[in-house]
Amino acid sequence: MKKDYIRPLDIKHGRIDMNHGAGGRASAQLIEELFLPAFDNPLLRQGNDGATLPAANGRLVMSTDGHVISPLFFPGGDIGCLAVHGTVNDVAVMGATPLYLAASFILEEGFALAELQRIVQSMGAAARDAGVAIVTGDTKVVEQGKGDGVFITTTGVGVLPAGVVLGGDRARPGDVVLLSGTIGDHGVAVLSQRESLEFETTIESDTAALHTLVATMLQAAGRDSGALRVLRDPTRGGLATTLNEITRQSGVGMLLDEAAIPVRAQVEAACELLGLDPLYIANEGKLVAVCAPEAADAVLAAMRAHPLGQQAQRIGSVTDDPQRFVQMATRFGGRRVVDWLSGEQLPRIC
Amino acid sequence: MKKDYIRPLDIKHGRIDMNHGAGGRASAQLIEELFLPAFDNPLLRQGNDGATLPAANGRLVMSTDGHVISPLFFPGGDIGCLAVHGTVNDVAVMGATPLYLAASFILEEGFALAELQRIVQSMGAAARDAGVAIVTGDTKVVEQGKGDGVFITTTGVGVLPAGVVLGGDRARPGDVVLLSGTIGDHGVAVLSQRESLEFETTIESDTAALHTLVATMLQAAGRDSGALRVLRDPTRGGLATTLNEITRQSGVGMLLDEAAIPVRAQVEAACELLGLDPLYIANEGKLVAVCAPEAADAVLAAMRAHPLGQQAQRIGSVTDDPQRFVQMATRFGGRRVVDWLSGEQLPRIC
Repeated sequence: MKKDYIRPLDIKHGRIDMNHGAGGRASAQLIEELFLPAFDNPLLRQGNDGATLPAANGRLVMSTDGHVISPLFFPGGDIGCLAVHGTVNDVAVMGATPLYLAASFILEEGFALAELQRIVQSMGAAARDAGVAIVTGDTKVVEQGKGDGVFITTTGVGVLPAGVVLGGDRARPGDVVLLSGTIGDHGVAVLSQRESLEFETTIESDTAALHTLVATMLQAAGRDSGALRVLRDPTRGGLATTLNEITRQSGVGMLLDEAAIPVRAQVEAACELLGLDPLYIANEGKLVAVCAPEAADAVLAAMRAHPLGQQAQRIGSVTDDPQRFVQMATRFGGRRVVDWLSGEQLPRIC
Repeated sequence: MKKDYIRPLDIKHGRIDMNHGAGGRASAQLIEELFLPAFDNPLLRQGNDGATLPAANGRLVMSTDGHVISPLFFPGGDIGCLAVHGTVNDVAVMGATPLYLAASFILEEGFALAELQRIVQSMGAAARDAGVAIVTGDTKVVEQGKGDGVFITTTGVGVLPAGVVLGGDRARPGDVVLLSGTIGDHGVAVLSQRESLEFETTIESDTAALHTLVATMLQAAGRDSGALRVLRDPTRGGLATTLNEITRQSGVGMLLDEAAIPVRAQVEAACELLGLDPLYIANEGKLVAVCAPEAADAVLAAMRAHPLGQQAQRIGSVTDDPQRFVQMATRFGGRRVVDWLSGEQLPRIC
């Protein structure tokens, strides 16, 4: 394509200005010199108002997520890879194979091009690692003080293999609740970077794409056996909120075993310091599964054999409870209700 | 579904607070009492992390657009219907039938629930009118001063009928350039509401869904004839920018006839007052088509027979030009180059 720009973007020193959002030459230059090299793939290169994709062989799954995390960079990741993982995971926990992502950027005037490049390169790498293509996108610019650096909305489309049926309304009394690993890592890693809170920790975000873990779990359960009932990634609101959503949708209760829920010592210490409960803290690379009791051992073994499920645990079971409570047997032999998060525990954690 | 909330949302007096973005009970209540009633459809009601959709019969088209327009309400529309029309149109100008939308909201703390409801009701109505379903969504909340009321990213998925091939790289010398109606209405309508600019006009935004107009044009040209080469909606950057994108992608030039380009007298007057050129002003319910000369009369007749194309005009032709200039024969018999918009003419117009 002909170079129509007199000078290339000064990525090292340049900043976003309102021109980059005007849809003219400056917008086109930003896309060609910063976004396209990071995301490069033939579908994106079509350069039309949208992307034309091959026919999909099966039912589709579609999911969207806005990302407004603050700060933009945190131990273990940044808003770019998070925006890919978050949407890939939402598609994956529906049982689908994620194929395509659309990415929409809302940039604040004055944002450094170098930071933007770092973010989109991280997105591109995360997409390649996950085997999904960023096929279309959009950029808008808002005035300084009307945004916060960059917000990224990603929308994913995947294909659901024949026979797979997962849903939050499929949990049945007697089912087993499995968790793929430690909780709270993402939230604590992000919190540790907040200006008002900075504390010492080596905890990193668990941000990761879970679709291959899902695939191995579906295979272990038998794809069309129906034994795998529900998959969810406990992000915003944490494990407690996710489990309450499931009990509510399915009209059941749950009984958890506190001692079985893996929490890193550093996460526990940080939570104590800050007065937080790890059950409500966001995760970005974990999943919770509800599965039929006869399939639980096979699914748990499959999880533990996968790099992202090595610390998977059976954390409880589904109960018959018209009140749909999530209850927990505590380490000290008591029992308590694990309620919904009613307020804001951690703003802008994803 | 059981009501878990003690009190319903106070939509009349309530405002968005950080709790509405936390993913817990307040988030769920906002979705159930404000978003779901406005968008209601069975696919959205599944209530999972994404939507499971039927298998699509054909190639897919995917497009995404962030909407940051200011002000949020303007003569002829609001950010809600605009967010539906904008993405429906991006899918439609690829030749596809739009089917599904995902909607992601970034809300600013303190935003009035009553305004939010008005916006999502407008979105719901626009989606129903266009025959598309809003199948999945997301809401995030940012602190006051880190956003601007509401930003909406919509992502559309459609299906491309067999035989249809449209693309910005398909214009050929000798092709005819058609425009569906007057230009500049949307931009001038929005500008007339800006606090700094307020001026008297009865101009309304042309915001509209163009997919049925596209369908009738494809039929007139012959769906698999290839005679319809390019369709585009000249939004941000206006007609001039859209035509420059096409000449650049196709490696051709264009010669426009200024006298044939319809501009309302009020739009022309407003542009003169503000020192703007209607060629660069955003439209949200117009399209430009490049088509083979032998099909031009039939396509133009089909456009004029459609409510959204009554004022359609043949505005120029594609030329052989290695420099890929868009030129215009002026009303006074001269000729000038219609260049890209290089800077920001109108910030946050969509």
